[in-house]
Formats: sequence, structure tokens, C-alpha cells
Amino acid sequence: MTRILGIDPGSQRTGVGIVDVDASGRTTHVFHAPLRLLGEGDFAARLRRLLIGLGEVIEQWQPQEVAIERVFMSRNADSALKLGQARGAALAGVVLRDLPVSEYAASEIKLAVVGRGGADKAQVQHMVGAMLGLSIKLQADAADALAVAITHAHVRATANRLGVDVRQAWGRK
Amino acid sequence: MTRILGIDPGSQRTGVGIVDVDASGRTTHVFHAPLRLLGEGDFAARLRRLLIGLGEVIEQWQPQEVAIERVFMSRNADSALKLGQARGAALAGVVLRDLPVSEYAASEIKLAVVGRGGADKAQVQHMVGAMLGLSIKLQADAADALAVAITHAHVRATANRLGVDVRQAWGRK
Repeated sequence: MTRILGIDPGSQRTGVGIVDVDASGRTTHVFHAPLRLLGEGDFAARLRRLLIGLGEVIEQWQPQEVAIERVFMSRNADSALKLGQARGAALAGVVLRDLPVSEYAASEIKLAVVGRGGADKAQVQHMVGAMLGLSIKLQADAADALAVAITHAHVRATANRLGVDVRQAWGRK
Repeated sequence: MTRILGIDPGSQRTGVGIVDVDASGRTTHVFHAPLRLLGEGDFAARLRRLLIGLGEVIEQWQPQEVAIERVFMSRNADSALKLGQARGAALAGVVLRDLPVSEYAASEIKLAVVGRGGADKAQVQHMVGAMLGLSIKLQADAADALAVAITHAHVRATANRLGVDVRQAWGRK
């Protein structure tokens, strides 16, 4: 059994989702939440809340591996800068705890969860709930975080079957 | 005497510079270096090197306050994302050690160091060396890091004289 933390970084809300995966690739829901970063203080204060919230999730649930969506571009430079800062802080929170991180493109996540690389966000959210047997409607960022965790669960189960190392963007090698 | 760490975040090199400032606002050079982030591994691996390098600098020199350039925008979304990630990771490395951070706009830094908000980078680098009595030519990112540290040194000396709190973007308040 391996416990995977998925992260969907954002400067207003960062989604976190945790699943357990067994040797056959079967996933079980453990935890999910949107870390809400808005409130008092400026943008830097949000990064602080992100780090503290992410640290608490890691302390409480003790994930062994981390998956995060790869980001290629954004609508404009200002939003890219904000997203980049949130992503950098989230990665910092993970790497400081020496957890291995894998990155997946949005199309890989959609393929793994819905079966189509061009699926829309609503389909991803619906399928994540269905795959994990959740009857509640998932908050969007938490659903995206669970989606990337599920993607990593499937990739590592396939890698295990084939007897190859799961690719890791960085971390323990 | 207060020890200030200035940071100039970048995804290829992150400059760090440390100065001591006394009650009168006089600054003394302590340390500077460009943390080189390129090398083996992908972008995420660079963030890791940034965090480790920054952590070593903080452990060795024990700064009490941190100053960083405020970023408004960037040339394009891709470079903004990369810069944002480096900045977010650097801020994470600082906030996790509970150090107070102040942010300064590029024009404030140029005004503090050169006396003109529209000064160019070469003038800033030259003046940083002159103010700190350094006879060597400074590496550009390290010079920018020292420049933001000097800016904070002057702002806090002025604030002390006026009996007001130095503004802090975040951290201890």
C-alpha cells in the first residue's frame, strides 16, 4: 500500500487530495480539502498559509509520494507569476520533507481518470468521485488534486507490473 | 546591529546578499553569492537546489530580517511562471524559518542605492560595490540581492529615527 498526495496549486485555493493505492492499482480515498488562501494580508501571507496548511496535511496523513500537475502556460504573465509562486511554495513544502514528486500534464490526468485526454473539468470531477465511491459533490480544486493522485497511482501500478521504476520528476532517485 | 538578507530570485540563478546595518543606517558587507540553479535535473530540481542553498546561507549567517524585490510583471507568461516558482520557493525557505520579509519595488531599490528611480542595472551594481567598499566586480544577481538588502537597511534606519515600525510585507507583526 502506498499513500499518495495530489496537489492542485493555485494562489487563491490550493487543492490537496490523498489516496491509498495497492499493488494492483486499486485506489482508496483517504482525504481531500481545498486549502483556502485568501483572507487578511497580502500575497506573501497566502504563501505562508499554503505552507502551513500543506505541512499540517503531510504531518497528519504521512503521504509517501506526491503528484502535481505540470503547468505549461497560463493566460497572462501576472496570473502565471501568482500561480508560479503558489506552485513553488507547494513544491518547497514537499521537498523539504524529502518526498518524491512526479509531475503529470493535464492531458495525462484526463486520460487516466476519464479515458480521454480532451475531457472537460466537470467530467474529471464526476469521475474522481465515482472512482473513489464518494457520494458528495467534490469541491473543484480538491477534485483536481485527487485526480492527479489517482493518475500517479495508476502509473506506479503499471510501472510495478512492468518491473520498471516509476518516473519521478525529482526527489529520491 | 541588524543582519539583513537580500534575495534576488531567478530560475537560473538566485542572488543572495547579506549586510549588517547599525542604528545610524550605516551598512557593512557580510556575504554575497549567486546560487546557481542550473545543472542536472528539471526545473523542480532547481527549486530544490535553491531551497538547500538558501537554507545553508541562513544557517551560516543567521540573518534577522529579509528583503526581496517586489515583482509586478514579466515579459511573458512562461518566464513569469518560472520566476514565480523561484520566488515562491525562496519565500517558502524564509517563512519556514519565521523571518520577517519586506518587499521593495525596483524603483525604490534604485532610488535607495543610486538616488534615481530610473537608474540602470549597471549603475546599481557599481554603487552597491562602492557603498560596501568592495573592490571586486560583483556578479549581477548577487549585486541585486545586496541592493535590496541595502534598501531595507536604509528604510529601517529611517523608520527607527522617526520612531515608526518598519513596514513588513509579512512575517512577525
